[in-house]
Amino acid sequence: MAQTSVEEKIILVTNDDGITAPGLRHLVEAVKSLGKVVVVAPDSPQSGMGHAITIGVPLRLYAVNLFEGIEAYQSSGTPVDCVKLAKDKILHRAPDICLSGINHGANHSINVIYSGTMSAAMEAAIEGIPSIGFSLLDYRFDADFTAARQVAYQLTRQMLDTPDLPKGSLLNVNIPALPLSQLKGIRICRQAYAKWVEEFDERRDPRGEKYYWLTGRFQNLDEGTDTDVWALENGYVSVVPTHFDLTNYALKDFLHQHWHVQLKT
Amino acid sequence: MAQTSVEEKIILVTNDDGITAPGLRHLVEAVKSLGKVVVVAPDSPQSGMGHAITIGVPLRLYAVNLFEGIEAYQSSGTPVDCVKLAKDKILHRAPDICLSGINHGANHSINVIYSGTMSAAMEAAIEGIPSIGFSLLDYRFDADFTAARQVAYQLTRQMLDTPDLPKGSLLNVNIPALPLSQLKGIRICRQAYAKWVEEFDERRDPRGEKYYWLTGRFQNLDEGTDTDVWALENGYVSVVPTHFDLTNYALKDFLHQHWHVQLKT
Repeated sequence: MAQTSVEEKIILVTNDDGITAPGLRHLVEAVKSLGKVVVVAPDSPQSGMGHAITIGVPLRLYAVNLFEGIEAYQSSGTPVDCVKLAKDKILHRAPDICLSGINHGANHSINVIYSGTMSAAMEAAIEGIPSIGFSLLDYRFDADFTAARQVAYQLTRQMLDTPDLPKGSLLNVNIPALPLSQLKGIRICRQAYAKWVEEFDERRDPRGEKYYWLTGRFQNLDEGTDTDVWALENGYVSVVPTHFDLTNYALKDFLHQHWHVQLKT
Repeated sequence: MAQTSVEEKIILVTNDDGITAPGLRHLVEAVKSLGKVVVVAPDSPQSGMGHAITIGVPLRLYAVNLFEGIEAYQSSGTPVDCVKLAKDKILHRAPDICLSGINHGANHSINVIYSGTMSAAMEAAIEGIPSIGFSLLDYRFDADFTAARQVAYQLTRQMLDTPDLPKGSLLNVNIPALPLSQLKGIRICRQAYAKWVEEFDERRDPRGEKYYWLTGRFQNLDEGTDTDVWALENGYVSVVPTHFDLTNYALKDFLHQHWHVQLKT
């Protein structure tokens, strides 16, 4: 990669909607004044890929000239693959921050688990890299990213400027589909307990065989006012500090107290 | 589905190695005396799929006759898709427990994030279903599942028999590749902090174009003796209680204290 000044921060940008998605371009534009931006993104949309990695087929990685003055690559892999490739094959070091998005559509509450946007950010966090996933609550191709860009700029700058930031800090940021003037502010939240009520759309193909489209309805089961869903419904940007230690310590205590499983040999 | 007696427990079994994997058959055999087993598994291997769901293509679901006396289906979807389809299209109710595995290969520490085995179990947990993912530390097709079967039987029975089990309890169980007689016991652990050091294998295709195979070396960065990696290295079965609330409460407290981000409008 090109030479950078000693002080210049390396900002890795990726997403899961693919390298041609408008949200990615808006993110690049929003943060390019804060450091040297390098883009490594999937060559096609990867929504719903969760924390998938590609092990059964080899990966491709090509330089592209899509963003003026910005080094950029597209990969045949998932968002997680992109972060791995960026670190090992392009940057040859860890970036100072990894940004993912801006996703076209929400990734709040339980959706963090299915989200390719957040999986890329999480992959960076596992490597000890401060990281943020941004999602706008508007699926449309021509969504208005004005407010989301302002949020991305401010939070990225804040993260880069925070001394003693805990290692591998990871944020899941969602932005309501509102004009900037109507946003009430930024709230640091916990992940709401919510889920999808699946309703598979059952159809028959021309040969008469059944097939199913996954569809569903989102259901918030959490009445807390400290959740991301509450914040978004009330006009706030939600910031959920996120981690990758999936240990359920409360259940661990319960099992230590109640389970005494002896292996029968 | 077929009628079941009022008391009989419904045990949903799935995996990520695919419906023909020996580990799945061993799991079915291990627990079939504990209730009515219904199998819904991917029609092909899905390792490394993380919490992927299928939204871009429709899903297929076919009954198969692979396990004597056991209702079974294969799906074109991911492990998570299988759990969703099982609940909505086959059982028409939540099973009493969901078991995933027995995976051919480890899913300890950070691998829980990439694991299709655990993603299926986690999907069930989100639905409030007690759930366990089982993985044997032996990748081979003809691995010896004797000890793993005994572990699966005992933990499944324990989970079904525990009164007041917290809702959606989810366990990540890994079994060392040891004969049953050499296993030291079962330990309830936390997830070790570990990661993969990637080393992409760079090659050239016949046209001279570069491509990359993802490979890498596992690195345990955690010196704790209460982790799953420690347990496995010391001859114990590791049981990590796992959850899907990814909120990092410690980082949340830090940000509440140190960040005061005002939206500039």
